[in-house]
Amino acid sequence: MTTTDTAVAEAVLHAQIQQFYAGQMQLLDSGRAEDWADTFTEDGVFAANAHPQPAEGRAGIAAAARKATDDYAANKIQRRHWLGMVNAERRGPDEVFAQCYAIVIETPRGGQAKLHVSTRCDDLLVRVEGRWQVKHRQVYRDDLS
Amino acid sequence: MTTTDTAVAEAVLHAQIQQFYAGQMQLLDSGRAEDWADTFTEDGVFAANAHPQPAEGRAGIAAAARKATDDYAANKIQRRHWLGMVNAERRGPDEVFAQCYAIVIETPRGGQAKLHVSTRCDDLLVRVEGRWQVKHRQVYRDDLS
Amino acid sequence: MTTTDTAVAEAVLHAQIQQFYAGQMQLLDSGRAEDWADTFTEDGVFAANAHPQPAEGRAGIAAAARKATDDYAANKIQRRHWLGMVNAERRGPDEVFAQCYAIVIETPRGGQAKLHVSTRCDDLLVRVEGRWQVKHRQVYRDDLS
Repeated sequence: MTTTDTAVAEAVLHAQIQQFYAGQMQLLDSGRAEDWADTFTEDGVFAANAHPQPAEGRAGIAAAARKATDDYAANKIQRRHWLGMVNAERRGPDEVFAQCYAIVIETPRGGQAKLHVSTRCDDLLVRVEGRWQVKHRQVYRDDLS
Repeated sequence: MTTTDTAVAEAVLHAQIQQFYAGQMQLLDSGRAEDWADTFTEDGVFAANAHPQPAEGRAGIAAAARKATDDYAANKIQRRHWLGMVNAERRGPDEVFAQCYAIVIETPRGGQAKLHVSTRCDDLLVRVEGRWQVKHRQVYRDDLS
Repeated sequence: MTTTDTAVAEAVLHAQIQQFYAGQMQLLDSGRAEDWADTFTEDGVFAANAHPQPAEGRAGIAAAARKATDDYAANKIQRRHWLGMVNAERRGPDEVFAQCYAIVIETPRGGQAKLHVSTRCDDLLVRVEGRWQVKHRQVYRDDLS
């Protein structure tokens, strides 16, 4: 069985983006807001149609994530972000535009798991020193679209 | 670290099918019913235990998808199809039998996201001129099984 | 486009684990409890924070799975396990520690699909004679964490 170099490169990219998303969102869901912010570029942007203003830069992204994380912890709710249906399109050797779906599942301690929101997510990802990072993320909540 | 050619070929296949599903279903969920139909072979079949008759051929598949898409749009409901748990089994250099799970999440504008149905999906996929296409899809809704 | 051997090996691993999970959980959800138990090592352990005792060894895992499977069948409920957000970390040539999320979706015959539980799952996977198997699985239900 022969597989072309291009096919291998594309498959490697797809697996890397999925692995990146898994690691990234597990950081956020386990409350490591600052480590999560480090998965963005230094000048990264997190924008969402649910927020009046985007969070900009790692410090801004960390601050917003910390607040949300602490609120969830205070309310004893476990969040789980699932990113899936990843459609990755290479823009350059170290740049990818990825469109995916994201849902948030919430479970209160002692309570029932619930699908909180369904969204789609447009990511511009860049590879910096061998590590994929989000340069720009735009999340669209389906209920607001 | 060495990886056998066969292992690489299988991993490439798995990533390709996932990427195909992501691109395919994003077309449908964004209302591009005719482009979605083009992800089937010219003689492709879409069968479902929820439908009395399968849709056959791209024109038939497009017509059925267009009607459903327009109904959802008229009702201001955003659908998201998630295909996952992809179990791909190579049948030949350009043929794959893939068994996966599929859920549909619906969100009314201004409303609450909801898990609409859970299904499993059996796909016969073929590669035509380098592009994966569905030759036969059979969807089984869990509530009807 | 060049892709390093290490990058290829990591991507192959990630795709293999996803393929393994898909095949594994489709066995359980289709009621093949004994075949599912064979996806664990002979001395495999299945532990869960929802269970007072772990199931140990293939026979013990099969017995526990058989009971649950028969209960679901008797109640005419179709289960679907989705494992996703797979974060795989190589521990050796034939050993992987994988952290993922798992949800269970249940659909009663003639009824509405429902998100039953949200969990995270820590797996120690080993490759025995070319086949990935679970040596130790620990599931944490979010409502109990």
